[in-house]
Amino acid sequence: MSGGADRLAVVLLSGGLDSATALAVARERGFACHALSFDYGQRHRFELVAAGRVAEALGAVKHRVVKLDLSAAGGFGRSALTDRIDVPKDRADDGGVPVTYVPARNTIFLAVALGYAEAIGAFDIFIGVNAIDYSGYPDCRPEFIEAFERLANLGTAAGAEGHGRFAVHAPLIGMTKGQIIRTGLALGVDYSLTHSCYDPSADGLACGHCDACRLRLAGFAEAGATDPLAYENGAGKR
Amino acid sequence: MSGGADRLAVVLLSGGLDSATALAVARERGFACHALSFDYGQRHRFELVAAGRVAEALGAVKHRVVKLDLSAAGGFGRSALTDRIDVPKDRADDGGVPVTYVPARNTIFLAVALGYAEAIGAFDIFIGVNAIDYSGYPDCRPEFIEAFERLANLGTAAGAEGHGRFAVHAPLIGMTKGQIIRTGLALGVDYSLTHSCYDPSADGLACGHCDACRLRLAGFAEAGATDPLAYENGAGKR
Repeated sequence: MSGGADRLAVVLLSGGLDSATALAVARERGFACHALSFDYGQRHRFELVAAGRVAEALGAVKHRVVKLDLSAAGGFGRSALTDRIDVPKDRADDGGVPVTYVPARNTIFLAVALGYAEAIGAFDIFIGVNAIDYSGYPDCRPEFIEAFERLANLGTAAGAEGHGRFAVHAPLIGMTKGQIIRTGLALGVDYSLTHSCYDPSADGLACGHCDACRLRLAGFAEAGATDPLAYENGAGKR
Repeated sequence: MSGGADRLAVVLLSGGLDSATALAVARERGFACHALSFDYGQRHRFELVAAGRVAEALGAVKHRVVKLDLSAAGGFGRSALTDRIDVPKDRADDGGVPVTYVPARNTIFLAVALGYAEAIGAFDIFIGVNAIDYSGYPDCRPEFIEAFERLANLGTAAGAEGHGRFAVHAPLIGMTKGQIIRTGLALGVDYSLTHSCYDPSADGLACGHCDACRLRLAGFAEAGATDPLAYENGAGKR
C-alpha cells in the first residue's frame, strides 16, 4: 500500500481559512489528499464553492461533497448556521458556547470521514480545528480529537483487525489564528480563495462583523499580513 | 426538563428485529422515544418502511428518516449492502469481518443521533447492537459503545458544560438472538412488522439464506418461538 506511492489522507475541507491550511499541511507532509466537504443546508453555501477552488489550488487528488440532510432530523435546528436565527454581529466573547454552534458537527463530519477513509484504504484524517481561537466549540478541543481517534480504531474493521492505525491529525490545534495564517502563507495558500463569513451578502462578500470574520481579520493583523478577501462596505480594511 | 414528564431518548431504528427490541426496552424504561432511521442508499429499503411501522406500533413520539447520501463519498462502495457485490448466502462463519460490513456505519449513525439528541435536549441514545451474535462487526462491541459515550460528553456543548451526561444504551449487547427475541416478545413486540433480510425479493419476502435471515431464524428456534415473517419459498419454515 505504501511502497513509494504517497500515503492517502482524508482532509475535511470547509472552504474556510483553517481547513485550507490543514490541507496545505497534509500535502507538505507528503499525503495524497482526498478532500471531503459537506452540504448540510448551511447558510454559507459559498463555502462549498470555495472548498472546490481550494482543493484544486492545493493539489487534492479528489474533492467530494457529501449531502447530509439533517433538516429531517430537526437536529440542527438550534443553530444560527442552518436555521433562521440571526447570526450575531460584533458580539463580546462571553466564554460560553456561541449560538453558531452546530450540535455534534465535528463528530458527524469525522465519522463520515472515517467511513470514507476506511473505504479507500486511508488511515490518516486531517481536520483544521484549533483550540485557542475555537470560540467555545467543545468539539475543537484536543481531548475530543484524541477520543475520536480512539473510537476510530475500535469501530472499524481496519482498526480492529490491525491492518493499520487510524490517526486524526489536527495540525492547527495549538495555533493562534495569526500562526495559522503565517503557516499557510509559507506553504503557498492563496487565502483569496477561502471563505469564512457566517453571513455573506447576496453577491458573496464577507460581512466583516460576524465571529468568523472578526477572528479572520484579527488573525491577519496578528500575522502582519493583509487579507486578500473582499469585504462588504470595505469592512476588511483596517 | 424532567419534572414528571418522560425523559427524552433518541433510538436508532433500522426496522430490524434488534432495534425494534431496543425501542421496546427504551419505552419500558419510561423514555419518550424519538426514533431515527437512515436512508443511506441501502439495498434493503424495505427496512425504512418497516421502521415506520415499528415506530408507530411501539409508541415512539416521533420517527425521523435522515437522508445520508454517501455515494458521493464513494465511501461505502466496498459493502454488499450498498453496492453491487453479491450478498453471501449460507456462508460459513470464518470469524472475519463480513463483506456486508459498512465502514464506520454505527459511528456515523451514533454521531447523527448525538446531534439530534443535543438539539432536542435528550441525553439518552439507544442502539440495538449486540456483541454475541454480532457477526464480526467491530462497531458492535462494548468497548466501542463506551468510547462513543466518552466522545459524546467531550464533543457536545451539553456534555462539556455539564447540563447533563450523555448515556449510550446498548441493552441487547450481551444477549443472544434468542434472548433478544424472548425479551421483545415479553414486551409485546410484533416481530411480523420487522425486517431483517439483506436481500429480499421484489415483493419484500425475506430470502431465508443471508446472514441476517439465518441469525434471525436461529434466534427464533433458540427462543422456542415461531418467526411470524413470510419467507421466500417457505424458507422460514423449519
